[in-house]
Amino acid sequence: MNYPESFEELIECFKMLPGIGNKGAERLVYHVLEMDNQSVERFSRALINFKKKIHYCKTCGHICEGEQCDICKDPTRDRSAICVVESPRDVFAMEKLKEYHGLYHVLGGTVSIMDGKTMEDLNIQSLFDRLTDEVKEVIIATNPTREGETTALLLAKLLSKKDVTVTRIANGLPVGSSLDYADELTLLRSFEGRQKL
Amino acid sequence: MNYPESFEELIECFKMLPGIGNKGAERLVYHVLEMDNQSVERFSRALINFKKKIHYCKTCGHICEGEQCDICKDPTRDRSAICVVESPRDVFAMEKLKEYHGLYHVLGGTVSIMDGKTMEDLNIQSLFDRLTDEVKEVIIATNPTREGETTALLLAKLLSKKDVTVTRIANGLPVGSSLDYADELTLLRSFEGRQKL
Repeated sequence: MNYPESFEELIECFKMLPGIGNKGAERLVYHVLEMDNQSVERFSRALINFKKKIHYCKTCGHICEGEQCDICKDPTRDRSAICVVESPRDVFAMEKLKEYHGLYHVLGGTVSIMDGKTMEDLNIQSLFDRLTDEVKEVIIATNPTREGETTALLLAKLLSKKDVTVTRIANGLPVGSSLDYADELTLLRSFEGRQKL
Repeated sequence: MNYPESFEELIECFKMLPGIGNKGAERLVYHVLEMDNQSVERFSRALINFKKKIHYCKTCGHICEGEQCDICKDPTRDRSAICVVESPRDVFAMEKLKEYHGLYHVLGGTVSIMDGKTMEDLNIQSLFDRLTDEVKEVIIATNPTREGETTALLLAKLLSKKDVTVTRIANGLPVGSSLDYADELTLLRSFEGRQKL
């Protein structure tokens, strides 16, 4: 016996989400069955609204509801530094620190041989357009993965022609971890990056 | 820095689903961000359609898209047996067996002291309305949990006044399990329910 058509369709939709398989989707649909009409309508509306309202900031590529994101619009931010990250998630992660007060630039991914993504596919031209005399430092904060490191190196090479200091966030042991459990590369980078106390 | 409003709202909506917390919801919203417009619209529509089209069968309480479910409508089903289950999920589980060809009756839950649910809150009156001379057996297939067992006992008592055979699905060891790991009650029930080979 098959599920009714609209039931199957909702299962298929939930399965589009990451980490949700057949069984998980079924479970969610049974839950929706017991939700009241208002909540389901709210959910349906939230999906459409989200897609309609969220845009990418025309300056930095971060997500926002208007033309420009709150960070680019904020007159109190330090305009001499631009932190380059892979995705909007990374901006939110950095912002949680409340330590960095400069601007951001979101690449929208990394170079990747697997996905056939090159530097041309990334949001790089607009970064160069932003490099006015005001900008003193570009901090490359792509992830310390193979793809992130490659992107960082390629980007640093491109930026070397410009009159701007290029820095890279540090590798090392995570706070609270132990040397014993660290992989060799992390330990090596941590050793190389040692600083005077 | 907070997420944009429509982003937050979609996070809240995903959090209404079971097993999805703050981090999980964030992850799903980031995924929706990368989905194309058509898929998101399809998802939104599926939610509304599901809620609009899925009804409970007026005869047995199972879910369906019309007034009556496919099983109640099917003229080839054996109308002498009614299998009583807790929820529509159980109907689908039974139907996967392809072994039972009778009808169903969905109670819509169990009695529960915790939730203050009594026999009056269950879909029981409509079961009694269905007990014509045609019906020879009522198979009580509520879950073998405390609530399910209580419901089964109370229902059996109510049905004892009627001219119908009342049976209960068997307890015992799951196939492929071992005696060693079974809990005492399961083993006891399995022993008591032994059958001639």
